Amino acid sequence: MGNQRRVGVLSPYTFTRRDVGEDDVSLRITHCGVCHADVVYTRNKLGDSIYPVVPGHEIVGIVKEVGSHVHGFKVGDRVGVGAYLDSCRECEYCNERLEVFCSKGALYTINGVDVDGSVTKGGYSSFIVVHEDEFPSASAAPLLCAGITVYSPMVRHKMNQPGKSLGVVGLGGLGHLAVKFGKAFGLNVIVFSTSISKKEEALNLLGADKFIVSSDEQEMTGMVKSLDFIIGTVSPNHSFDLYLSLLKTAGTFVLVGCPNEVKLNPLSILVGMKTISGSATGGMKETQEMLDFCAAHKIHPNIEVVPIQYANEALERLIKSDVKYRFVVDIENSLK
Amino acid sequence: MGNQRRVGVLSPYTFTRRDVGEDDVSLRITHCGVCHADVVYTRNKLGDSIYPVVPGHEIVGIVKEVGSHVHGFKVGDRVGVGAYLDSCRECEYCNERLEVFCSKGALYTINGVDVDGSVTKGGYSSFIVVHEDEFPSASAAPLLCAGITVYSPMVRHKMNQPGKSLGVVGLGGLGHLAVKFGKAFGLNVIVFSTSISKKEEALNLLGADKFIVSSDEQEMTGMVKSLDFIIGTVSPNHSFDLYLSLLKTAGTFVLVGCPNEVKLNPLSILVGMKTISGSATGGMKETQEMLDFCAAHKIHPNIEVVPIQYANEALERLIKSDVKYRFVVDIENSLK
Repeated sequence: MGNQRRVGVLSPYTFTRRDVGEDDVSLRITHCGVCHADVVYTRNKLGDSIYPVVPGHEIVGIVKEVGSHVHGFKVGDRVGVGAYLDSCRECEYCNERLEVFCSKGALYTINGVDVDGSVTKGGYSSFIVVHEDEFPSASAAPLLCAGITVYSPMVRHKMNQPGKSLGVVGLGGLGHLAVKFGKAFGLNVIVFSTSISKKEEALNLLGADKFIVSSDEQEMTGMVKSLDFIIGTVSPNHSFDLYLSLLKTAGTFVLVGCPNEVKLNPLSILVGMKTISGSATGGMKETQEMLDFCAAHKIHPNIEVVPIQYANEALERLIKSDVKYRFVVDIENSLK
Repeated sequence: MGNQRRVGVLSPYTFTRRDVGEDDVSLRITHCGVCHADVVYTRNKLGDSIYPVVPGHEIVGIVKEVGSHVHGFKVGDRVGVGAYLDSCRECEYCNERLEVFCSKGALYTINGVDVDGSVTKGGYSSFIVVHEDEFPSASAAPLLCAGITVYSPMVRHKMNQPGKSLGVVGLGGLGHLAVKFGKAFGLNVIVFSTSISKKEEALNLLGADKFIVSSDEQEMTGMVKSLDFIIGTVSPNHSFDLYLSLLKTAGTFVLVGCPNEVKLNPLSILVGMKTISGSATGGMKETQEMLDFCAAHKIHPNIEVVPIQYANEALERLIKSDVKYRFVVDIENSLK
């Protein structure tokens, strides 16, 4: 990883977490998932990265210290941390356990400004200090961002009605979990991918009902007005008009990926009263609900476990969609 | 109006309606509203106009003949016809009285192909033949397109919860009715317009709570995250990102106008799980419900009644937004 620090390249970095406050929990991190947000922040895609950036917001760890007011966790508990560490706990959104929408702004796990003024640093590291209320969990790291990011809008937009049809655009970390949730909800799931290489696994490993290569015009045309819902998980630009044409009347396209722009012909939504809705991550209450749902339905992300020394290559492969279907960094055994 | 027929210019034209079938109703037209669709079809904006075009789909008339199977209407009844004349009456949408979304395609009042193969001709004319089931009504013509176009999505997206806030973008035929419905629903209504000239009437005649000139950056910024809903009624291009920023978390922007394209930054909907939804006209059941609602709440469109000879000038003024707030052609007294 070299001695010279370069933007977008990860190299070893030693820092100190803030002290554990009376309402805080400190974790020894064991695993951390690799999310596309880690590419965004390490490479300053939004122009607001505060270096040095420590990425990672799909964190699983063991409690090593708790503050004097903490009663929900004890030393040795296994817990998870997702995209945010804290929120005001007073506003209408926090009261509804939708902390990520906190009126005063949630404290993000990466690139946020903590109570002591320090910039928050993510889970590609040995320890982290979080405010109490993170949920205990034995589930895997990728559910804490990728999982809740698809589960939350799927439930909100009533994609859990058995017999309805769901299109999943893109089969990466988010997409493969959308397929698993869709099948657990009893939906007819159709995967749209740019690459035929994922067909076999989509159908036989993940349980999708149909796989369509999105460049195949004939297959796409055959799907017109056939879907109740679509969840778009890919960030590369693609034609919204094309996918909107596959929706039935009053159908909904949920966007969870982040293309450069959203552009469409207004007639694509005016005719047939169609909807495009965005979503990102989710609240604590629904995250716990998702973890319970995953436990009950034996839904586990398909992961590739890598050592911390592989982090840069993992990010490069993630950019090329070369992962089935989520990298998880084995912090415990590789970051000493 | 001259003798030479030119595309986009209306001139007198004599034609015969098809015979009245056993399930049909024939009307003597008394009034017809002037809708932006009349500009679209007369000027072939969508490229599919079949000339000669007879515009008009906000029709009010008196029944002059009924078919032998018709039992809902009798000669002399006053009835209204909106954007469509017929549908299959068998599919899931027709069964839910959402005939405009008919699986086999509704028969539009203008530029559709009728059962006898003829091209449908609208209400800027003396008579029309429609399939039974059009609702009887003493309400004014503009409710039949402009009215239902805003009422339908307002109800569908739950904009009828008193105390919520609604932004109305544009104050024309659709916009002024959205303000009236919004106030009748008990909403806090904010009008966004490009022109200060409508401020006085918006507040004092239509009852809006606030009027903002959309080019006033300071006023716009002051509205960030303040609205539960926005209904966009204008067709000129405008910034979706700007209006989406005015919505609260989980807010909804309903598009009923038709700009050239819809373009936005995906973060405008991803952050705060916001929604953009399209809508156009509505079903028969909700149209009747709207007419009943208008009668109960004394909601009447503000109209400018003009003779048929003024039709071309009316369309020109409509394009320039120079109408308060809907033209209605007095067919009965001017088209002999």
